[in-house]
Amino acid sequence: MKLATLKDGSRDGRLHVVSSDLTRAVPASGVANTLQQALDDWMSMEPRLRALYDRVEAGAAIEAHPFDPAACASPLPRAYQWADGSAYVNHVELVRKARGAELPESFWEDPLMYQGGSDAFIGPMDDIPVTDERYGIDFEGEVAVVTDDVPMGISAEAAVGHITLVMLVNDVSLRGLIPGELAKGFGFFHGKPPSAFSPVAVTPEALGDAWDGGKLHRPLLSTLNGALFGKPEAGVDMTFDFGRLIAHAAKTRPLSAGTIIGSGTVSNKDSGGGPGKPVADGGLGYACIAEIRMIETIRDGKPSTPFMRFGDRIRIEMLDDDGASIFGAIDQTVVKAGG
Amino acid sequence: MKLATLKDGSRDGRLHVVSSDLTRAVPASGVANTLQQALDDWMSMEPRLRALYDRVEAGAAIEAHPFDPAACASPLPRAYQWADGSAYVNHVELVRKARGAELPESFWEDPLMYQGGSDAFIGPMDDIPVTDERYGIDFEGEVAVVTDDVPMGISAEAAVGHITLVMLVNDVSLRGLIPGELAKGFGFFHGKPPSAFSPVAVTPEALGDAWDGGKLHRPLLSTLNGALFGKPEAGVDMTFDFGRLIAHAAKTRPLSAGTIIGSGTVSNKDSGGGPGKPVADGGLGYACIAEIRMIETIRDGKPSTPFMRFGDRIRIEMLDDDGASIFGAIDQTVVKAGG
Repeated sequence: MKLATLKDGSRDGRLHVVSSDLTRAVPASGVANTLQQALDDWMSMEPRLRALYDRVEAGAAIEAHPFDPAACASPLPRAYQWADGSAYVNHVELVRKARGAELPESFWEDPLMYQGGSDAFIGPMDDIPVTDERYGIDFEGEVAVVTDDVPMGISAEAAVGHITLVMLVNDVSLRGLIPGELAKGFGFFHGKPPSAFSPVAVTPEALGDAWDGGKLHRPLLSTLNGALFGKPEAGVDMTFDFGRLIAHAAKTRPLSAGTIIGSGTVSNKDSGGGPGKPVADGGLGYACIAEIRMIETIRDGKPSTPFMRFGDRIRIEMLDDDGASIFGAIDQTVVKAGG
Repeated sequence: MKLATLKDGSRDGRLHVVSSDLTRAVPASGVANTLQQALDDWMSMEPRLRALYDRVEAGAAIEAHPFDPAACASPLPRAYQWADGSAYVNHVELVRKARGAELPESFWEDPLMYQGGSDAFIGPMDDIPVTDERYGIDFEGEVAVVTDDVPMGISAEAAVGHITLVMLVNDVSLRGLIPGELAKGFGFFHGKPPSAFSPVAVTPEALGDAWDGGKLHRPLLSTLNGALFGKPEAGVDMTFDFGRLIAHAAKTRPLSAGTIIGSGTVSNKDSGGGPGKPVADGGLGYACIAEIRMIETIRDGKPSTPFMRFGDRIRIEMLDDDGASIFGAIDQTVVKAGG
């Protein structure tokens, strides 16, 4: 089943069921007005939404209209929790290597995770407003899941069963603000302005073979100003699967329905086990600019790829075996705030 | 105006208007079912809630019933944002001093703030479930405000006008988990299980002279197992007022209606400018156990006051000039999770 939230002027938008090929949508108003409302009572809502989805797939939903990703909000336009892991430890190792620091061995056994702001996500095709280009504007292509109610202290194995939906996310990052912020010791705040999620959220079973072992096994495509920037495999080098990430988040507290858990930036090593190469050099590339800058720093002593400027455009997408978009594309342009 | 959310089995509870003396409550269902719903449209809801409050105060609300703080959820049982500052820099300085570290000069000019979990707060008289006593269970008595929609980049002066409600909070902290967590660099997660807020949220104007300059000027009373533990003045030694804290939170992103901003642990220096003394020594005491342990560490080389054990009880309250409770009391007992 595929779900989307269309903008309707309200804070939470209007829940829609979307056809698997992303061509048609139908309002879910007979079942739930908003996605949060559906998640609050998922056990009873999910079969009813699925019945509507089956009608859409069968071409029997006469109320269906063409699906327009540009009219989408993030599936949850605001959420009660957004906790983002850093499951591709290769990414963390590269960040450290670029500044000459060792990666603590524990980072391979204990996930990194930060509490993100979730009160106002931007839509998948909304502009990204930033006050100052000198903040070091970067995208981060990630996978994210939405949970139902998760009890405190759950095991990683049991946690996988609490995943209701899978999405892509652009975890916008202001690189220039992060080092000073992390040095203060309280984690990210200014460095992480609102994220955007893919137009469509998909149930795990609708992902078929691409969903296995709590991981999504497809390349994550990032296209920067029209040029392919990365195609790392989301199912490869993911040190912690989503079950581990959810269990980590729930160690000392329960998680409420509608909690979003992110994978962190998708990042692959190269086939020889070294850091991955840029697309231009025949590699799989990257899901954020910081990573190619680290590679450049390690190789050349300094980075050469600039962060994003006003007017720059980032597209993040995942295709199935037939080349069709699974989640629809996040496709955003950086603009000057208030400009 | 005073507002409370009574538990009704739903996730968001039921909004009530409460009399200034906290004796009577009336459902706000004619105006808004939940506090978030009221905050989403505060400009139009606030006058209607106030009209109901005036009727309650005049004794004209025949539908009023006795107000029972034990039946309360936190005013926002779940919120889209909980960002907690550390505005009493004295507290931060003490933490550092206890481990022999200097306080960076910038900490006096640039607020510390962390993004907290907000998906499931516990009620003001709910038990605090913790898995393991060895986590180092502590309370933190703080003041918090709720904002309406705050634009990105707002000034501290303008931000004060975006405060809709004031509350108290117990920001439960697991001290034993925090050092390792902060060392990883991504901020708090396991160390901050769900917080609890006071039974009642109060509009700034209803606080009278106690609300001035974006600060709340009354002693914050913490009572641990029936003994007064602290009575520091919330309006004193607050390095950053709530306007500064909100402006800090909104530097790179807007804040949505219903955002909760915390002050951090209330903490006073003593009259000579040194760290405050315990109540037993004639001082104002503390709003968390960690602080008396720091004083003991500085004085004796090691802490002697233990953290909370299962069965320990903490009460956090603020009284007006006549000794009446302003927000009602947070009154919680630590229990073994699942026990």
